[in-house]
Amino acid sequence: MNNQATESTKTKKTKRNYYRKPAVKIFALGGLEEIGKNMYAIQYGKELILIDAGIKFPDADMPGVDSIIPNIQYLKENKHMLKGIFLTHGHEDHIGGLPFVLRELSAPVYGAGLTIGFVRTKLEEHGLLGSSELHVINEESVIRFRQLKVRFFRTHHSIPDSLAVVIETPHGTIVHTGDFKFDFTPTEQATDWGQMAKIGRSGVLALLADSTNSEKPGFTPSEKAVGRAIRETFRKCDGRILFATFASNVHRLQQVVEAAEECGRRIAVIGRSMERAFKIGQELNYIRPSKHQLIDVRQLDRYPDHEVVIVCTGSQGETNAALTRIATGAHKHVSLYEGDTVIFSSSPIPGNTQNVYRSIDLLLRAGAEVVHGSIFDIHASGHGCEEDLKLMLRFMQPKFFIPIHGEYRMLRKHAEIAEQTGTERDNIFLLRNGQPLHVTRHKARVGKDLPAGQVLVKGSTTNPWEETIMEERRALGTNGVLIVVLTIDPKQNKMIGRPELITRGFVYVRESAEIISAGTKVVRTTVRLLQRRKKFIAQQWEQKIIERLTEYCETTMDRTPVVMPIFSYVEQPAAAGDQE
Amino acid sequence: MNNQATESTKTKKTKRNYYRKPAVKIFALGGLEEIGKNMYAIQYGKELILIDAGIKFPDADMPGVDSIIPNIQYLKENKHMLKGIFLTHGHEDHIGGLPFVLRELSAPVYGAGLTIGFVRTKLEEHGLLGSSELHVINEESVIRFRQLKVRFFRTHHSIPDSLAVVIETPHGTIVHTGDFKFDFTPTEQATDWGQMAKIGRSGVLALLADSTNSEKPGFTPSEKAVGRAIRETFRKCDGRILFATFASNVHRLQQVVEAAEECGRRIAVIGRSMERAFKIGQELNYIRPSKHQLIDVRQLDRYPDHEVVIVCTGSQGETNAALTRIATGAHKHVSLYEGDTVIFSSSPIPGNTQNVYRSIDLLLRAGAEVVHGSIFDIHASGHGCEEDLKLMLRFMQPKFFIPIHGEYRMLRKHAEIAEQTGTERDNIFLLRNGQPLHVTRHKARVGKDLPAGQVLVKGSTTNPWEETIMEERRALGTNGVLIVVLTIDPKQNKMIGRPELITRGFVYVRESAEIISAGTKVVRTTVRLLQRRKKFIAQQWEQKIIERLTEYCETTMDRTPVVMPIFSYVEQPAAAGDQE
Repeated sequence: MNNQATESTKTKKTKRNYYRKPAVKIFALGGLEEIGKNMYAIQYGKELILIDAGIKFPDADMPGVDSIIPNIQYLKENKHMLKGIFLTHGHEDHIGGLPFVLRELSAPVYGAGLTIGFVRTKLEEHGLLGSSELHVINEESVIRFRQLKVRFFRTHHSIPDSLAVVIETPHGTIVHTGDFKFDFTPTEQATDWGQMAKIGRSGVLALLADSTNSEKPGFTPSEKAVGRAIRETFRKCDGRILFATFASNVHRLQQVVEAAEECGRRIAVIGRSMERAFKIGQELNYIRPSKHQLIDVRQLDRYPDHEVVIVCTGSQGETNAALTRIATGAHKHVSLYEGDTVIFSSSPIPGNTQNVYRSIDLLLRAGAEVVHGSIFDIHASGHGCEEDLKLMLRFMQPKFFIPIHGEYRMLRKHAEIAEQTGTERDNIFLLRNGQPLHVTRHKARVGKDLPAGQVLVKGSTTNPWEETIMEERRALGTNGVLIVVLTIDPKQNKMIGRPELITRGFVYVRESAEIISAGTKVVRTTVRLLQRRKKFIAQQWEQKIIERLTEYCETTMDRTPVVMPIFSYVEQPAAAGDQE
Repeated sequence: MNNQATESTKTKKTKRNYYRKPAVKIFALGGLEEIGKNMYAIQYGKELILIDAGIKFPDADMPGVDSIIPNIQYLKENKHMLKGIFLTHGHEDHIGGLPFVLRELSAPVYGAGLTIGFVRTKLEEHGLLGSSELHVINEESVIRFRQLKVRFFRTHHSIPDSLAVVIETPHGTIVHTGDFKFDFTPTEQATDWGQMAKIGRSGVLALLADSTNSEKPGFTPSEKAVGRAIRETFRKCDGRILFATFASNVHRLQQVVEAAEECGRRIAVIGRSMERAFKIGQELNYIRPSKHQLIDVRQLDRYPDHEVVIVCTGSQGETNAALTRIATGAHKHVSLYEGDTVIFSSSPIPGNTQNVYRSIDLLLRAGAEVVHGSIFDIHASGHGCEEDLKLMLRFMQPKFFIPIHGEYRMLRKHAEIAEQTGTERDNIFLLRNGQPLHVTRHKARVGKDLPAGQVLVKGSTTNPWEETIMEERRALGTNGVLIVVLTIDPKQNKMIGRPELITRGFVYVRESAEIISAGTKVVRTTVRLLQRRKKFIAQQWEQKIIERLTEYCETTMDRTPVVMPIFSYVEQPAAAGDQE
């Protein structure tokens, strides 16, 4: 291995020095044992570079959370070390966390043209564009730091301008694939096979590679096959065509432009992110509509049905996306009618399956025909399947291997694949987020955990959330709340007047009166017992009331709300008592 | 068509009478445009029979709901007409609603042996066994009412003893398939093809058929293929085997018993519903373990690893199921170790996908190998695919066709299939729950909607839930609650003392003090303005406080809790005022 050979020669002269050379630390702040919020770090001595800064969207059981980003405490504590953030491509799970990072830390950001295009819009929305240092790079760029040197090679993915990152360290070369697949018949931006072979031949110390589709056999289909399916489907349609896909899949959009051109159809673009993708895609010449091919959605009526394609967002059944609004009849400019064909050029992300089907059902009901991925070859994944992964491993022949981007079983499957392609079993590391791998040219070992995990974000705040809050919300959201207001004279250990019960999200209006009067009785009985004690202890009262009311609710209604006793104290208790 | 020919002869004599003959009403209270809570009704004059009484489990966005049953208002209003409830098979989505129906209505219940076996346990749990009339029937039974006559034929499904229901009415024969697939090489309980052909030949007026897999091409694989895969997988295992599947798939359980026998393995059964299935299955001779083959889970240690199979629940990743508890290390008797193989003989129901994958990841981490449906041929669906559906349609050649059991796009696809197999397009009806089809031997038309829809159930209460409660819960669950307690002297329109703010599920403890003191200020400012008014109007105060606090939370924290002002009134305000 080339780099290491050089090192080795040097080492002979200054042996003690060599042993003092620190190991390279490779670790993830996000992206291991999960899909989303990717963030990897390579650290050598006092130089730290970051690869990607992604975001993840929450599950249904995280009420009130807008998004999830990696915990960047380690970066904040080591600000001075951070030399640069390298973005492999422009998907949200790789760039969406950037505004949150750049609000806390400053570092130059590197990415290919389209990636930086998307980043620019994103930072602008967050008011961070002015203060950020953005660099457009390509597969020929070399970024040099004192000890680390960073290069790139092109990969294929479901967004143009995807790059793998090659980091040369004093111990050897580390390769991070980003998200990738191989495409033997790409529509454009062909991989430079020679360049990849060269990197591999010159020796790869460690490879970090995308595991998303490791459980799927074979090769991932080519984007060109999708192009064919799009053209064939377009040819069969007599009416309007609505085409929904991921806005970031700019090559796909160009394929739609070409298919539409062939069929003499004009294109109306709807949905904010789709409009943005067309704008950036045209600026970079990735999307090349003919003159007058793009029309405004308000001009749709001027053209016969068989002369238009509506390209829109909503392929995941997202509530506010264009297609969903069209499906529910809530779109300002487009309403469906018989003869329309809706094409979903996408496959549902696991959590979205039910939303997508809901959209499809609505569209069918509105009279449209629906073509979706599970039936036709109208979509191809952007992630490599088993054979793609083997090919990458064969190219790189890494000494050490770290499967990344995937849930645990995918990482594990990728590890098996790496073993099959020749990496030694003991040199494959299944890491957790925050677990650093200390790598030298001879060996690798897992170091002590660094702070990692997730930060739950609401709006644009980055405060870490507390799990107790989430628990309180779950409890409130399950059976509502029952508030008991008592006016108390603490000096006399007495309740003044009567308890007032107020509920929210607990009982139906119909049942309400009966339950509240019965509940009030329970409180009065409980208070009567409490008043017999000598001293007023708020905690005791609270606890007893919660206990009794919860018990009452459980036995009579089989559900237990959050019970909250609230005490309002009379201000001059002694005076009131004296007068009696 | 045979039945109608007889009718027709009679009609010639008393023509006026014939025209007075009411139409047969066919309608669903559940099971259309959805999967689950199946309930179909056939009504002729004053005779009404019910087919199935299912339950459905709620989505994540229905906090606090345990299950969903069909709205049975129509049945309650027409109690006297209900002659019988016919159960096609023993799955929850076909029998789970029975306790709720039988608590409100009484009617004899008919089902095959295993179905009634499961029903019996269920009714016992609900304390309804004594008051219910249960009849075990089989494919030779005939149940006669005054006008309607009910017969059955055997079908294949993922539970033994599945029956289709054949209802002879004065207008002709109606066939309801229940859930079905065809199995050319069944493990047992072969379909009587001759009987089916005979029913079809003698004329079917209307067919209601299962649409669950209508979007899937080809035939559904045979249960025998699964048996082969099970045996092959067993043979490859050296360590313990944990086998998870649906407890109700009793034929599958017998295949496990056979495979275990072949490999010299004993079987330990865990999970309440799995134990029940083994018990009922053995009573009916569907599960036939050899002597001493079943062992208690506490005896596991006595046998070497390669001599045991643990059959357990949890194939859907359900939180409290045996396999999930084993995976998390929370099971009393079984803990995993390296060498164990866990087989998921199931495919995840859409809403459960993520739970299943979570289970798999936990099992892998605990050191087990995992074999699951998406990789091996270790499971077959119980529902017929496109070709099965065509075969059923060919057998029955119905005049009218109603696709049932499926979401809208599945029903629609099934309608297309029916058209291809010869049913006239105008004779195919895509109904909604509650939409009755009025059928005579000549024509069918859609009648006026009957009450239908869903009833949300918590515990064992059947009160219909109000959507407002659900909304309140969602609001509480999203951002928590902020309670403001004010002591007020209404006569003087004055606040006494200071407002108290209490939160739950809203802010972190860390932020809490600051936000509460700022919120308190907001309330005091608002109150100052309110006190300038002449009269105390509680509603005005409430509204203003909610408005201001919500605004404050939104602008400073970008999230809005449910704000609840609570007023506690001072009892003798005038006196207090006078003394000042």
